[in-house]
Amino acid sequence: MRIGLDAMGTDDAPAIEVAGAVRALEDLPPDTEVVLVGDESRVIDELGRHSGFDRGRISVFHAPDRILPEESPASAVRRKRESSIVVGLELQKAGDLDAFVSAGSTGAVMAASLFRLRPLPGVDRPAIGTVLPTAAGPALMLDAGANVDCKPSQLVQFAHLGKIYAQDLMGVPDPRIGLLNIGEEPEKGDDVSVEAHRLLVSSGLNFIGNVEGRDIIRGACDVLVCDGFVGNILLKFYESVAEFTVGLLTKELSVSHAELNLDEVFRVLDYSEYGGAPLLGVNGVTIICHGQSNTKAIRNALGVAAQAVSKGMVGHIARELSVDQQGG
Amino acid sequence: MRIGLDAMGTDDAPAIEVAGAVRALEDLPPDTEVVLVGDESRVIDELGRHSGFDRGRISVFHAPDRILPEESPASAVRRKRESSIVVGLELQKAGDLDAFVSAGSTGAVMAASLFRLRPLPGVDRPAIGTVLPTAAGPALMLDAGANVDCKPSQLVQFAHLGKIYAQDLMGVPDPRIGLLNIGEEPEKGDDVSVEAHRLLVSSGLNFIGNVEGRDIIRGACDVLVCDGFVGNILLKFYESVAEFTVGLLTKELSVSHAELNLDEVFRVLDYSEYGGAPLLGVNGVTIICHGQSNTKAIRNALGVAAQAVSKGMVGHIARELSVDQQGG
Repeated sequence: MRIGLDAMGTDDAPAIEVAGAVRALEDLPPDTEVVLVGDESRVIDELGRHSGFDRGRISVFHAPDRILPEESPASAVRRKRESSIVVGLELQKAGDLDAFVSAGSTGAVMAASLFRLRPLPGVDRPAIGTVLPTAAGPALMLDAGANVDCKPSQLVQFAHLGKIYAQDLMGVPDPRIGLLNIGEEPEKGDDVSVEAHRLLVSSGLNFIGNVEGRDIIRGACDVLVCDGFVGNILLKFYESVAEFTVGLLTKELSVSHAELNLDEVFRVLDYSEYGGAPLLGVNGVTIICHGQSNTKAIRNALGVAAQAVSKGMVGHIARELSVDQQGG
Repeated sequence: MRIGLDAMGTDDAPAIEVAGAVRALEDLPPDTEVVLVGDESRVIDELGRHSGFDRGRISVFHAPDRILPEESPASAVRRKRESSIVVGLELQKAGDLDAFVSAGSTGAVMAASLFRLRPLPGVDRPAIGTVLPTAAGPALMLDAGANVDCKPSQLVQFAHLGKIYAQDLMGVPDPRIGLLNIGEEPEKGDDVSVEAHRLLVSSGLNFIGNVEGRDIIRGACDVLVCDGFVGNILLKFYESVAEFTVGLLTKELSVSHAELNLDEVFRVLDYSEYGGAPLLGVNGVTIICHGQSNTKAIRNALGVAAQAVSKGMVGHIARELSVDQQGG
């Protein structure tokens, strides 16, 4: 198995990426190789700072160019054919990589995945999934920002995508699907919500109904379906509230309780535990990481990518959607 | 000044309401009277349990009926003319009350306010404002759930409503208005967001631009404008995340650090500090409280209602919107 990693993605590239790749070797199956895609000489320099790992399991593929976060994604992807993002996804398309992980421009990774890997049959628009920590363990929310407006039928597709991700990556045999809404009753919300609720009821999925904002954190469902506008706002809000609360506490506790062990609290609120957000619905494995990812987040994202490949997630999604098409 | 309080609103009515009213007398201006609207004998019984307050400043207005949270708001308001909510808002309409506070069915309070008080000229749809704790102090978010779909021009009206509330109730002379969106750039979001951004730029308001989910908690703006779908989900999510985090901590800290004083942390995350959500844009003062409100929340909501009256908030809103209409 060969997992590609954009070596030029984070704000501290390639140091974070190289460190994440080196650490990931400890978790990944022994036959797995990490391919660092980026400026070859800088990446090799950086690799030289590490030791005690199997150098034969890390290779470098040269990509001299880099797409910056402030560039327009679609035009940058068309223009910068030598960028790490475009090169990495070309390699996956050609079959030279099984998956690609990037902490670069989210828009560019999405656009390049869409153009190169293409959506699977039955998928109108791929969605970004993101794992939210809850009191009952992780839940997958999608879409987290790829699509601002969604039709009801697209929300149903997201539910199918999320179901397979939860089965293959989160180990949930029969994922409970919830529709994010402003009330529990089927008639709540806007027209899109009402129609999506109706379609989900007859989808054959384990649909538990509408889920309100207050139900997410107690773990009401395993897969939370919403459009990318609400999803993106909620995700960014969650991250910042967790940080804010931890900050308040740290300030409050630092003087008198320096010995206090808050590791468990921090772990629950720590996104890097979950490592990256999958772009679901394309014909391949793309994992998108934060631009501010740390080594642990990159390491975990590589683990998620490897697991998606070894479980055959893309094949499962293709089958799920073809069954869905035939059935309904 | 006479502030009406629905005595039958909370899950523990009328005990919570009566206790809140008694406690509120300590904060309210001496010439202010609280009128408890509800089942007269039960309310008088409950008042008998309290002592050491000026009984002359609390009166009871009999309303034998009660609208339950599970009833359809519009039809319940039409049908139950003797309910505490309908009677209270009739009293305000007739000029016998200056404001009305209720922890009863939010939908019924909204519907009765709309039918009885009517929207102010220039307001298409009233909005529920809610105060969110942030690192830089409270911020007002609106709409928090009254309107699931909003036109760009309605979002601009919300901005004007929020501006006046922030000036009169939060003491912010020139409130910074933000538009909740998925990115900072003007072209981000759906068509409604893009057009609302354009209108806000030329509104004469102190518009600081789009605000992302992650910016809310650091206090990026004083007034956060959004539609009621996103606002409701975000509000309920915030409340539950705050509870969840505090719960995690309490569990983590309880054994070894029972002496720990987390009051400051809890205070920042405690909604009852802010006391109720104003329904803005009607020709009167309506404050909506949680059904699970405690005594402090009711007390604070009565304080907010009194302040809105004494500051002349409704007059300021009427003027703001008439200026806006003439100006644009």
